[in-house]
Amino acid sequence: MNEFYQKDIISIKDFGKDQLEKIFASTDKIMQLSPSDRREICKGKTLAYLFYEPSTRTRLSFDSAMASVGGNSLGISDTNSSSTQKGESLADTVRIMSIYSDVLVLRHTLDGSSRFAAEVSDKPVINAGSGTEEHPTQAIQDLFTIKKEKKKIDGLKIGIVGDLKYGRTVYSLLYGLGNYDVDVHLISPESLRIRSDSTYEIKQRLDYKESTNIEEHIDELDVLYVTRIQKERFPDEEEYLKVKGSYVVGLDLLKQMKEDSIILHPLPRIDEISPDIDKTKNAKYFEQAEYGKHTRAALLGLTLNENGF
Amino acid sequence: MNEFYQKDIISIKDFGKDQLEKIFASTDKIMQLSPSDRREICKGKTLAYLFYEPSTRTRLSFDSAMASVGGNSLGISDTNSSSTQKGESLADTVRIMSIYSDVLVLRHTLDGSSRFAAEVSDKPVINAGSGTEEHPTQAIQDLFTIKKEKKKIDGLKIGIVGDLKYGRTVYSLLYGLGNYDVDVHLISPESLRIRSDSTYEIKQRLDYKESTNIEEHIDELDVLYVTRIQKERFPDEEEYLKVKGSYVVGLDLLKQMKEDSIILHPLPRIDEISPDIDKTKNAKYFEQAEYGKHTRAALLGLTLNENGF
Amino acid sequence: MNEFYQKDIISIKDFGKDQLEKIFASTDKIMQLSPSDRREICKGKTLAYLFYEPSTRTRLSFDSAMASVGGNSLGISDTNSSSTQKGESLADTVRIMSIYSDVLVLRHTLDGSSRFAAEVSDKPVINAGSGTEEHPTQAIQDLFTIKKEKKKIDGLKIGIVGDLKYGRTVYSLLYGLGNYDVDVHLISPESLRIRSDSTYEIKQRLDYKESTNIEEHIDELDVLYVTRIQKERFPDEEEYLKVKGSYVVGLDLLKQMKEDSIILHPLPRIDEISPDIDKTKNAKYFEQAEYGKHTRAALLGLTLNENGF
Repeated sequence: MNEFYQKDIISIKDFGKDQLEKIFASTDKIMQLSPSDRREICKGKTLAYLFYEPSTRTRLSFDSAMASVGGNSLGISDTNSSSTQKGESLADTVRIMSIYSDVLVLRHTLDGSSRFAAEVSDKPVINAGSGTEEHPTQAIQDLFTIKKEKKKIDGLKIGIVGDLKYGRTVYSLLYGLGNYDVDVHLISPESLRIRSDSTYEIKQRLDYKESTNIEEHIDELDVLYVTRIQKERFPDEEEYLKVKGSYVVGLDLLKQMKEDSIILHPLPRIDEISPDIDKTKNAKYFEQAEYGKHTRAALLGLTLNENGF
Repeated sequence: MNEFYQKDIISIKDFGKDQLEKIFASTDKIMQLSPSDRREICKGKTLAYLFYEPSTRTRLSFDSAMASVGGNSLGISDTNSSSTQKGESLADTVRIMSIYSDVLVLRHTLDGSSRFAAEVSDKPVINAGSGTEEHPTQAIQDLFTIKKEKKKIDGLKIGIVGDLKYGRTVYSLLYGLGNYDVDVHLISPESLRIRSDSTYEIKQRLDYKESTNIEEHIDELDVLYVTRIQKERFPDEEEYLKVKGSYVVGLDLLKQMKEDSIILHPLPRIDEISPDIDKTKNAKYFEQAEYGKHTRAALLGLTLNENGF
Repeated sequence: MNEFYQKDIISIKDFGKDQLEKIFASTDKIMQLSPSDRREICKGKTLAYLFYEPSTRTRLSFDSAMASVGGNSLGISDTNSSSTQKGESLADTVRIMSIYSDVLVLRHTLDGSSRFAAEVSDKPVINAGSGTEEHPTQAIQDLFTIKKEKKKIDGLKIGIVGDLKYGRTVYSLLYGLGNYDVDVHLISPESLRIRSDSTYEIKQRLDYKESTNIEEHIDELDVLYVTRIQKERFPDEEEYLKVKGSYVVGLDLLKQMKEDSIILHPLPRIDEISPDIDKTKNAKYFEQAEYGKHTRAALLGLTLNENGF
């Protein structure tokens, strides 16, 4: 029996290196299978999505992943037009959605929502982003991308730049990287540094250095992970514009980087990566999106097949 | 040939006991089939939903039912963003949707909308709730639940509590129960009693007693069917709060009930059933939701297969 | 190899008579196949729709077409709730959607959007309406309807009536008709005549006569193509009401027409065709909608199968 069968995917912290490597191997297998063989994996299975926070990107990544392994998707992408509007509890909505499906994909603003949903659901629950820190399938996608493009994770120097305070993607990635022997550089404006109430836990898992200057260690990095800096995080626009400009990744910055370094981004991007970068061999964010589809397909296949695939 | 083939499902009044029992037998069969055999029943068929009134719950019940028998669903769940916004008539929209599908599922605010749609549609039309009284698939789901959980319907004492004036579910259930030999107790605040213009027709079909006190006959009931009392039905909030409290089903009330009585609810519930009840053996509202998926799958299978399944 | 394999469908101007006839033949084949054979054509393929302009009708036509050939659909029908809201560029959104699918269907307000999308997409792009003039799949549907119902296109007299200024359907149809030897009569109020900046190009493709009076040549027409006149195009309501009445197609007008003439409409209609017409043998607008499903299914089949089907 495969260890992921009927298991919830709630937090990246629940995954050890060994488990991550198994998921990566399954993803490799998904990518090697012919489309028709792939469609046998979750044939006739139904995924229900329940998004209390809009995220078309993540929803479609799951939807297309499920379609690629032969399943179908249904659900609620806009909780404004659903029973939740009538005052139904999360527990009831989750119970009903689990009746309608084989696996439930939940996105919610609150920390702990997925763990709670998993307790009341008969079917496995996959956390598609919750609260301030958790987005486990994004972290798995990011780690797989690094592994695939750099052939390893251990030993790499990884810079993460942008809004490190509010992006849950960053926290999930850091917890995931904690399974590997990596050097992490966190680069952000002073006001968007990683939250102080998370630093203790992160430090137990990995070492990192902080900096406000993106150029400081840029020539040492193997991976530059870029995130969006959102205007609404700043008290005034002038402050935002000042900061924004200094974190745009363009060809000038790329020239200072190692030749075989890679640039990642969870997308959508606005202008934090210049379009000039797109056609360079270093830009791997679209590959990252594609790997996201395949890692999710692998997770669905593992969750829904007793003996794996 | 099965008698439901290509037939519309417009009103629960169109179904006699004999027909209901056939649908129940088909539902039992659906539940016994293996998932892959089940998916052969409507393989490659398309359901089109057309919801002029939002109801995520009912829509997803149909969507998951259709998926379980191998078909797919498409349609309009929000008429605000569709051609109906451009002023298209219901007749035209129905005609077009029937071109895009094998069966049409309609939800509409107006009485008679489904009958009208059935007249202009080339494909069978299923009423997923219309006007003040009709919700035939909900009634079939409710009757099947009673049958399944109590092993019979004839001879039962059935209490229906809550908002009996505005809930179309209640009317459809009453018309459906009219096919059986049952004792019905209607329990509601004075202002939410069953509509006087419907009592004549209901009385022709079954006998019922009315009461404002839920405890009055509670120890005699085999089935307690609970519905939501909506705040907006009351002229002032104080009035609402007074009434609301007296119809909440909790453990205290359950203790007064027969040991093998069952509690049903069309869902979503707000707080008219205490969560304490959920884990008792009497709570059957989540089973009811699951039966709803299977009864709808059976109806789709009967409607779309000349020789049944 | 079929010439449409992996090709974009951007403009009706890119299609010659020979190509149109091949698409018509493929559509005929689609219509003759059994449902289960039809579902083999795009089995397991995924269509992604990306609608920056709402059009439930067109979206569902593609969705049902894709279902009929065995594929599935996913996407964004409301760009207000998607990543585009976060400021993502069209290029990035298109790139991501092409990762999630085998073929991309785009609707956009801007001219040139589809051509641009096709340049950045790895997968074929089908234009489902863009800018002021292009709606190639509607034009193919319209031409196929004429061919099917009149057994030919060459030699026909075709009247196009209504709002000729703002309807992109009209322009696409005219460019498509340019491949055939037809007499075209354009009938509209003075203020809704065909745009002067398009007349040069249209005249290079076909001859047409303009008129404000629908009855002038009505007895000569083989095809009357009716379009909606939208209230919001007029400076005041009185002006609108005056014009509107004179272009309503009713039984009186039909009596003046050739017995075997046909009446078409891209739908939705409001009241520019009287419901009296619906049951006459001349009304072919619902057939036109059905052919729209089949022509789109044929286009999807040709685009996604190297050796056709």
